[in-house]
Amino acid sequence: MTEKVSITGIRLGVAVAGIKTTDRKDLVVVELAEGGSCAAVFTRNAFCAAPVHVAKSHLQKNTPRYLLINSGNANAGTGEQGMQDAESSCRLLAEAAGCKAEEILPFSTGVIGINLPVEKMALAIPAALVDMKESGWEQAAEAIMTTDTRPKLATSHFEIDGVGVSVTGMAKGSGMIRPDMATMLAYLATDAAVAPELLQSALNVAVEPSFNSITVDGDTSTNDACILLASGSAGTPPIIDQGSEAYRKFSTAVSEVCLALAREIVRDGEGATKLVEVLVEEANDVAEAREVAYTIAHSPLVKTALFASDPNWGRILAAVGRADIPQLDIDRVEIWLDEVCIVRDGGRAGDYTEAAGQSVMDRSEFTIRIKLGRGSVSSRILTCDLSYDYVKINAEYRT
Amino acid sequence: MTEKVSITGIRLGVAVAGIKTTDRKDLVVVELAEGGSCAAVFTRNAFCAAPVHVAKSHLQKNTPRYLLINSGNANAGTGEQGMQDAESSCRLLAEAAGCKAEEILPFSTGVIGINLPVEKMALAIPAALVDMKESGWEQAAEAIMTTDTRPKLATSHFEIDGVGVSVTGMAKGSGMIRPDMATMLAYLATDAAVAPELLQSALNVAVEPSFNSITVDGDTSTNDACILLASGSAGTPPIIDQGSEAYRKFSTAVSEVCLALAREIVRDGEGATKLVEVLVEEANDVAEAREVAYTIAHSPLVKTALFASDPNWGRILAAVGRADIPQLDIDRVEIWLDEVCIVRDGGRAGDYTEAAGQSVMDRSEFTIRIKLGRGSVSSRILTCDLSYDYVKINAEYRT
Repeated sequence: MTEKVSITGIRLGVAVAGIKTTDRKDLVVVELAEGGSCAAVFTRNAFCAAPVHVAKSHLQKNTPRYLLINSGNANAGTGEQGMQDAESSCRLLAEAAGCKAEEILPFSTGVIGINLPVEKMALAIPAALVDMKESGWEQAAEAIMTTDTRPKLATSHFEIDGVGVSVTGMAKGSGMIRPDMATMLAYLATDAAVAPELLQSALNVAVEPSFNSITVDGDTSTNDACILLASGSAGTPPIIDQGSEAYRKFSTAVSEVCLALAREIVRDGEGATKLVEVLVEEANDVAEAREVAYTIAHSPLVKTALFASDPNWGRILAAVGRADIPQLDIDRVEIWLDEVCIVRDGGRAGDYTEAAGQSVMDRSEFTIRIKLGRGSVSSRILTCDLSYDYVKINAEYRT
Repeated sequence: MTEKVSITGIRLGVAVAGIKTTDRKDLVVVELAEGGSCAAVFTRNAFCAAPVHVAKSHLQKNTPRYLLINSGNANAGTGEQGMQDAESSCRLLAEAAGCKAEEILPFSTGVIGINLPVEKMALAIPAALVDMKESGWEQAAEAIMTTDTRPKLATSHFEIDGVGVSVTGMAKGSGMIRPDMATMLAYLATDAAVAPELLQSALNVAVEPSFNSITVDGDTSTNDACILLASGSAGTPPIIDQGSEAYRKFSTAVSEVCLALAREIVRDGEGATKLVEVLVEEANDVAEAREVAYTIAHSPLVKTALFASDPNWGRILAAVGRADIPQLDIDRVEIWLDEVCIVRDGGRAGDYTEAAGQSVMDRSEFTIRIKLGRGSVSSRILTCDLSYDYVKINAEYRT
């Protein structure tokens, strides 16, 4: 993204709190203009982190004025102390910023099971507040990174009554990526004015085919959250009607930004060298389409074959066969790699050649398409390969 | 296993057919004495291989006299040609051995989607028949290997009416290991005389806690099969009563051999450096205990932490939290590494120390124990870690 991004009514500041072992920026404060609105979705992991509990609780009481984000420590698996630490960090920012602690949503990402170093955050929060600016997106996207190799930003523009408005988002996430209702920290904002229930509706619609349809390693995080802020600073009339043209444009823009960020997360998956779409067609329902898609996307044998650019399609076939689908008739199943049909009528397609399969596998992005021959429902997810670097990153990562 | 194994009434011969690209033995013929009995379980993968279809069909018509096993080619995903090839290979052995083709069960293991080179098997079958001997177990166990690094054999002895009888088994399997009803080629034999239905009963009981409770990579094979032969050559009275002492001893011996072979398969899992038991206790039912156990065992983040001997228990906690268990109360969950409690009351145990966790993780074998605090049902599975070598083996393996 070379484009300069900013959303009027949204300011972002960063600081070095020293939570990460390295000397990187690891604290972000995001400010929402007064009168703005906020929508959110969170992880469904039963062990959801302390900041997730606190953020949900605060959201029920107030429209937030600030987001307080740290990387380097997830404040998950930290029990009662973790809850106190998350509340303490909110109080620190509230005092410095002059608002109520309940108007702050806390977010944490990093290692699980270590207490949050609140005293380090206390020293960094004033610095982050001094740093606040509307042009702060790029450095904020960097500050929320953990094993990410690059910041992830996306923007979509549209018009309401001839006035240009924008939706911008940033996300982080590289490992422990199989979001369930949201992803590991994504923040979107718009300068449009949007009624809270429509903001939530647009976010819910956007999250399903984007963040909720990607997987790096199948490990749903304890800290996943996706936030959409609307500052209303563009001066456009409030979006209050779900049937309006303005809502349709806005919802589309939110979906575009979520999808772009989700693709970036998979493309930057830990150790990833390939971006692979798994498209399952002709299913009876979405549940069975997704069961087949995730079985393929989570198969270590399929993922290592992707890494090797090896058209070892027997592994894809075996994954389809073991998916939890009652009475699958394999004679009706087709498996395609982009334009190349590899399996038809229960076995290798007659016109399949290894050279044709290899030509697709050599691509850095391609689609594995499964036709189940059972119904008319489709579903697609995005995944990546499993490389030496995935093992290296996760055998060595502890910060 | 230094012990010499043999079962009277069972002879095994091996040969080099040239199906593997290397010059290794890759063809095995197993002969069952006339009057013997046979029990079998097969994979539930919907894309089950041609030899699985043929073996099931032949089993319904006859008690088998021979097993014909090749490594290097799975004859899976090969459609109608695969069925013809499996039948042809049986006919070739039937002619050479002087029996009906329906008295032969074919088994294949190796790469998926390549037609079986039946002509190569035709040349090797006579050599294997010449090689037949009761002491042929070790070399047969070697000949069925693919990515295995060592042969797997186990034996259990017991007495019936003062006469010593034995159960011996061999197995192969290293990757694509999450058996569902059986494992990638295991063959057991006894010299006891056992009624076919009791043979099947003992096998079914033995397979659940052994082969059906191990996972290397979650990938259920297309070719899994487990066969139990009874020659009756020991001269002991036939086991025909499920309530008898003889059946109880026999069933225990079969279970012991299956468990020993299953452990060997995980210990020799592709790239494995650790053997880890995942024990889930206090579940409401077996299904939820196994859901939690497999979610942990299949988590790439947990598996890479095991490889690194890193007590990064947050990954175990996150896996428990994302398991598909309705309304899990995390405050009742405990997580233990052997004798060390790491999680209690929803967070890190007060007395947990990194040094204590490290001391368990440094072991080559240990137990991850989860107490769910919901009921009284337990289940255990065996798994291994995910190492650089797993990626190496599966990014380079094609034969």
